[in-house]
Amino acid sequence: MNGKINALGRWIPEQINGQPVIPFQGIGKYIPEGRKAAPPIVSCANYPKDGNKVVNSLRKALELAGIKDGMTISTHHHFRNGDKLTNKLFDTMAEMGVKDLIWFPSASFPCHEPIIEHLKSGVIHHIEGSMNGSLGRFCTMGKMKGQGVLRSHGGRYRAVQDGDVHIDIAVIAAPAADPFGNANALYGKSACGLLGFALADSQYADKVIIVTDNLVPFPCIPWQIHGNHVDHVVVMDEIGDPEKIVSGTTRITRSPARLLIAEYTARFIKEAGIMKDGFSFQAGAGGISLAFISFLKKFMEEAGVKAGWVRGGSTRHLVELLNEGLTSYILDGQTFDLDGVRSMRDNPNHVWTSPFTSYNYHGKGNFASMIDVVILGATEVDVSFNANVVTHTDGLLLHGMGGWQNCLFANCTILALPSFRDRIPVIVDKVTTICGPGQLIDVVITERGIAINPARKDLIDSLKGSDLPVRTIDEIKIEIEKICGGPPVPPKVDKKRVVAAIEWVDGTVIDVVYKKID
Amino acid sequence: MNGKINALGRWIPEQINGQPVIPFQGIGKYIPEGRKAAPPIVSCANYPKDGNKVVNSLRKALELAGIKDGMTISTHHHFRNGDKLTNKLFDTMAEMGVKDLIWFPSASFPCHEPIIEHLKSGVIHHIEGSMNGSLGRFCTMGKMKGQGVLRSHGGRYRAVQDGDVHIDIAVIAAPAADPFGNANALYGKSACGLLGFALADSQYADKVIIVTDNLVPFPCIPWQIHGNHVDHVVVMDEIGDPEKIVSGTTRITRSPARLLIAEYTARFIKEAGIMKDGFSFQAGAGGISLAFISFLKKFMEEAGVKAGWVRGGSTRHLVELLNEGLTSYILDGQTFDLDGVRSMRDNPNHVWTSPFTSYNYHGKGNFASMIDVVILGATEVDVSFNANVVTHTDGLLLHGMGGWQNCLFANCTILALPSFRDRIPVIVDKVTTICGPGQLIDVVITERGIAINPARKDLIDSLKGSDLPVRTIDEIKIEIEKICGGPPVPPKVDKKRVVAAIEWVDGTVIDVVYKKID
Repeated sequence: MNGKINALGRWIPEQINGQPVIPFQGIGKYIPEGRKAAPPIVSCANYPKDGNKVVNSLRKALELAGIKDGMTISTHHHFRNGDKLTNKLFDTMAEMGVKDLIWFPSASFPCHEPIIEHLKSGVIHHIEGSMNGSLGRFCTMGKMKGQGVLRSHGGRYRAVQDGDVHIDIAVIAAPAADPFGNANALYGKSACGLLGFALADSQYADKVIIVTDNLVPFPCIPWQIHGNHVDHVVVMDEIGDPEKIVSGTTRITRSPARLLIAEYTARFIKEAGIMKDGFSFQAGAGGISLAFISFLKKFMEEAGVKAGWVRGGSTRHLVELLNEGLTSYILDGQTFDLDGVRSMRDNPNHVWTSPFTSYNYHGKGNFASMIDVVILGATEVDVSFNANVVTHTDGLLLHGMGGWQNCLFANCTILALPSFRDRIPVIVDKVTTICGPGQLIDVVITERGIAINPARKDLIDSLKGSDLPVRTIDEIKIEIEKICGGPPVPPKVDKKRVVAAIEWVDGTVIDVVYKKID
Repeated sequence: MNGKINALGRWIPEQINGQPVIPFQGIGKYIPEGRKAAPPIVSCANYPKDGNKVVNSLRKALELAGIKDGMTISTHHHFRNGDKLTNKLFDTMAEMGVKDLIWFPSASFPCHEPIIEHLKSGVIHHIEGSMNGSLGRFCTMGKMKGQGVLRSHGGRYRAVQDGDVHIDIAVIAAPAADPFGNANALYGKSACGLLGFALADSQYADKVIIVTDNLVPFPCIPWQIHGNHVDHVVVMDEIGDPEKIVSGTTRITRSPARLLIAEYTARFIKEAGIMKDGFSFQAGAGGISLAFISFLKKFMEEAGVKAGWVRGGSTRHLVELLNEGLTSYILDGQTFDLDGVRSMRDNPNHVWTSPFTSYNYHGKGNFASMIDVVILGATEVDVSFNANVVTHTDGLLLHGMGGWQNCLFANCTILALPSFRDRIPVIVDKVTTICGPGQLIDVVITERGIAINPARKDLIDSLKGSDLPVRTIDEIKIEIEKICGGPPVPPKVDKKRVVAAIEWVDGTVIDVVYKKID
């Protein structure tokens, strides 16, 4: 296997899945040429004049869409672990005798474990997208026929837009849709807020199938997906499990260490002078993030500061900020609870966005780079501030990247994480897999101290006089190695077997995952 | 000049502006192959990280956009006769010494008369788009260097999407915009409702410049134009004349003949059984249309009937229907008065649409074909029901087509028009210019009677028992020729000089306009 060393010193094979790849060249260094993907021109003459595109089964829709071996089939993950469509979809294609498909999800979840059977039987050749939990394990053990390709949300939009991935058939689960195919996720028993992760699919796929459990009369308003992109509409009894689509109990962490991390993070933003009128921030829906929002909210109230806009994933904690006038807007990429869904439906200042607006690096700018501060997690971070979100220190690929890479372009990127997990250090000499270059990671906040990237002298200066525990990342690393009994043991891997590639936001390859040896 | 006879018997040259053309082949007969236009791939690395794309002058923005001779420059017409940008734009390019441009407006208005100087001086080579009033006269007299190409609103979207027209620089006037380029037309002193006519331009042009007189902080919500498509933002004192953008006095006709036409039209819809719960209609903002809406409203109230949706161009008359619960939705392509703008801003059921959703014939369906009944005008209609909206009987090209061609796909297309104007018959043997095939025109309603297309036996049957004055179109024609002293005199034209082509919705050429001889 031939390859090259990329700009971060990682070896990158010449090809992934038989296609040539470009090694990571540095941030903003790879400037693409050429033109975007061009979907086929179609004619209204071939679509029903009355706009009724409903067909009576998923199988029928797939037949009409011309399903055949080797096609790339896309799905979205707004239903998260409550997705009831994807398994049925591939079961149907298995029944139809189709083989060697590429599954191109925007993310996968534990509920997709049955997909392993289709990977084993050859219905699916490989997955391009996040492979969480058991799917990731299956891939890491070298059992998938093809190689995985992991992309950020923005990278997925980019790959479709740029023509790196050609979607033959997009199958879009929609909580509300009309017979023409206009669809949204704001209404119905499976309401999940928005359908942004399916936007590229609707715009660029050759064929688009909407599957809904809530067919409404034309016009389905608002149309988050345009019916003008849709070929067929299928009605099913149940496309999602509402209990698992959104969690009614997105909970703030109770761990004292994690609460401390959250508090340090909020204090850092305040004391570094980032928290000022009109500022913007993005935090996720994990326990630390939610606790952080709660601390920050208190500080904002005390100081009389109001944010200009905040980015979701939204939860009731973010919605509270909006309702209480502490932010003018939520620009939201996904709703994590029912308060988020309701707010997005009822409050025009809770705005649905998409990977196109927020994250696409091959656009004329995007929202992610305009944010003042973003709070993210990681599985590992190294002393050069490079970070990993997809593999664990044992080499297992267990997570997708979500919008993580895209968010690194914020003015201040903070990784807020415990210094060790299960007595395994999180701060290491070299991360198992590089997902984000240290150059873009400004601050690492742990319960044992705050490490500021030496390149961010402005941030270091801004903290002068603060009693926050600012330390070097090496200091923190040495301390936790003492606690944990030394650095982590590197995983045993077969360096000749690349099982997955990690794309950077611009489509170059930043690192690879190797087959783990039992 | 070589050419061919098209499916409607009109002679079509082999080329327009040196480009090969496809003659009209019949409705739904020309099925395109190939793929859509593919804009260049760009990189965030080349755009400001903080999202601020403001440059200090239009000239600077044009320089940065790489303006040069021969480029295609697009503008939109949502400001109608109050557009204060377009003339300045071409004045600026004239000052910069640029030549041989193609102006690609979504429509032109009397306020654009100064463009004639740029046509004479060679700054602009020709116009692709509607040429109203004096611009049309200039073109018809053979004074424009290139040939005009007239397209419907949907045809314009299609032409850009299909790559027939490549826009080098789109200049989009926006009543509200943020520094990133997100823009809408709902707020600000120049508010005109929506920016749908500029949608294709923003999506497909190589470079996009937003010009606003109302720069708002990011995020400009809602984003009718995505900043992710925008290269530069320019702030000017005044981009439109609010008085002329929208008319506060869109008035119902007072002419007894026109009131009768409006009443006949409303009665026709009621008595033909089209007016029933959930039905849909589209009418324009002309005097007859407004009177029609008023009659229809009365009938709907009497019968307790509620529309499912209506299409704008919106005025206060349509807004009343929405506010009084007589329609569930307005799907609106342009607002004609301030009530329309306000309603679109404040009522989520007053929905902004675009030529993509409503009219694009090379989409997977569009809204226009789903409408139960549409009421349109025409300059001429012939005994085969072919109709003309662009030239007058004297051969002068004086109007654009708007969405007229696209609307012909409704389930019932009604032309509601006076039988003669200025003592010149409107019903003729053969229209001067065919813009729409008679096959799609179902009913012609005049003050002297209602002619139903013989192909629509269902409509003829539905009117049995009605005392509406249903007559043959020949009967009406003969009657008005008696009144007017005979059929109109055909214009003197130079059949060797095609000055403009009329495209059908699918990009084929349905007819041409000849140079008029003084």
